[in-house]
Amino acid sequence: MTTVAAYAAPAPKAPLERTTIERREVGEYDVLIDIKYAGICHSDIHTGREEWGTALFPLVPGHEIAGVVAEVGPGVTRFAVGDHVGVGCMVDSCRECDNCKAGLEQHCTGSLGMVGTYNARGRDGEPTYGGYAQKIVVDENYVLRIPDGLSLDVAAPLLCAGITTYSPLRSAGVGPGKKVAVLGMGGLGHMAVKIAHAMGAEVTVLSQSLRKKNDGLKLGADHYYATSDQKTFDRLAGSFDVILSTVSVALDFDDYLSLLKTGGVLMNVGAPEHPVSVNLFSLIMGNKKLAGSLIGGIAETQEMLDFCAEHGLGAEIELIRADQVNEAWDRVVASDVRYRFVIDAATI
Amino acid sequence: MTTVAAYAAPAPKAPLERTTIERREVGEYDVLIDIKYAGICHSDIHTGREEWGTALFPLVPGHEIAGVVAEVGPGVTRFAVGDHVGVGCMVDSCRECDNCKAGLEQHCTGSLGMVGTYNARGRDGEPTYGGYAQKIVVDENYVLRIPDGLSLDVAAPLLCAGITTYSPLRSAGVGPGKKVAVLGMGGLGHMAVKIAHAMGAEVTVLSQSLRKKNDGLKLGADHYYATSDQKTFDRLAGSFDVILSTVSVALDFDDYLSLLKTGGVLMNVGAPEHPVSVNLFSLIMGNKKLAGSLIGGIAETQEMLDFCAEHGLGAEIELIRADQVNEAWDRVVASDVRYRFVIDAATI
Repeated sequence: MTTVAAYAAPAPKAPLERTTIERREVGEYDVLIDIKYAGICHSDIHTGREEWGTALFPLVPGHEIAGVVAEVGPGVTRFAVGDHVGVGCMVDSCRECDNCKAGLEQHCTGSLGMVGTYNARGRDGEPTYGGYAQKIVVDENYVLRIPDGLSLDVAAPLLCAGITTYSPLRSAGVGPGKKVAVLGMGGLGHMAVKIAHAMGAEVTVLSQSLRKKNDGLKLGADHYYATSDQKTFDRLAGSFDVILSTVSVALDFDDYLSLLKTGGVLMNVGAPEHPVSVNLFSLIMGNKKLAGSLIGGIAETQEMLDFCAEHGLGAEIELIRADQVNEAWDRVVASDVRYRFVIDAATI
Repeated sequence: MTTVAAYAAPAPKAPLERTTIERREVGEYDVLIDIKYAGICHSDIHTGREEWGTALFPLVPGHEIAGVVAEVGPGVTRFAVGDHVGVGCMVDSCRECDNCKAGLEQHCTGSLGMVGTYNARGRDGEPTYGGYAQKIVVDENYVLRIPDGLSLDVAAPLLCAGITTYSPLRSAGVGPGKKVAVLGMGGLGHMAVKIAHAMGAEVTVLSQSLRKKNDGLKLGADHYYATSDQKTFDRLAGSFDVILSTVSVALDFDDYLSLLKTGGVLMNVGAPEHPVSVNLFSLIMGNKKLAGSLIGGIAETQEMLDFCAEHGLGAEIELIRADQVNEAWDRVVASDVRYRFVIDAATI
């Protein structure tokens, strides 16, 4: 066991505090990673504040991890000391179910299920602790390679915000000739704009206001509209092949479905806590789809990282010290971040 | 103009009565059809009773029409006198919009829009009258060929019930190796069972009760479960690639989405009048889709008829005299039909 410093919430809704945790010995197929940067995802906050149900405390959040390999187990073949690597939302799964075999480890149906990077229990029954820490030990099969040319700080958020938006855009067939709307211009939304643009699509941002319009256009959007303006819905009726909703408030889904072309899909990666209301005629009239997508599998996450490196895409970040994490959480909740906080793990 | 006998509702909710209507002269590209059979679709009743909004009266319903060509205009190239033909839910569209050009005439976005076979106005501004009549005049581009080997009586319901179920099954990739659930065992559902089975899928019927189980298995279902039994949902969790809902009551969509495999789709061709409630996590956890589908285009309707002829599929029908139509409507509303009423047009 190795003792490492970390930031943990000792109890639900309690502020994070500096503490120490134990990391397991480096096993045969394990990689010990010196964490360099850890992104702050809204999920960290939902979990720490038990907005998504009971959590395990102490809780060390963080599933947007970028670092450098410090040690590898004797059976590790894919990584060597010094490699730049990342860890996303999961650190294990059953590896035997149809979904695991199909590269959909995030939907593992085995009895182990997807083992979250934090707030979960691994095969050894021990709680998992996330990336707000100095080091982490992860089985090599759940470690991603961060290609040269991607700085670790801007790469960290790709491990969740990147794959969460890349996977649905890819599965919806986004590419040249497609019109894509990105709903919401936050941590996920700003990555969706960059990725959809790099995929060759014509990208429109739909945001509550025009406050971030200049940023959106700079990041690759071709158009930017305010959803607070009802004229937006009249003007854009029947326009999009794909709408990617990154927001987690209850929308008027019938209004948004009206913006799709025939056969279009409204993909949701954000979700409100409570059920939403949809008129099925909004789907039937136009052969439309309302869909959901959860992060992405390991192979697809690697594909996303390679794609981002090839196109020079990292997140737009505000680098913070670890002792600013509680303030950062409050600012995330207030949507006051452009566009992702990243903790400099050297300050933990 | 030709005067023909028809059954019409003179006013909203009024019983249908025998009357006469005028059919237009056979124009250059028109086909005059001697109607032999007309299926009764629940839509006829919704429209006649103004459950779907204001309708045009007198109303001659019927969009499941099978008959024989009696006369063709001088420009008609695709049909000749004596041919067996059908007419479905539409008799015209703009022919110029992207959807019309793509064979999605039912989603015509031109100013004309899809011209319904009844309760619509054609390009000439005159109301359209449907299949509860002796004859109809239709532009050849909206006339389907009923292949040899398909009897006209059992072919008539294919023009709506057949294409409404064929199109979403096809677009969802149903075929060998796929597990399909058909929700509801009525006019649409029984055709969905036959078609999905003929496509090579493993077919499960989900019906309120087991009352029609023997019929379902005879028509091609491999399994049949009652949705009134909560154990059905436990037993079938994560089972299906595709669920086709043919019912128009508000379901517990989260329960039904739980029956899908990862990546599965719940296709809706029936819709309740009011919005439904869905928890977006039911879509996100499993990358699932809630979709809608509206009939099918002209080319796809022909493909469906050819498919049904090849596989010997017609509807299960109860043939009635025209003067039984009001009683039949009441029985449709009471779900007391196995599985489609068809009017013998010789009795009009």
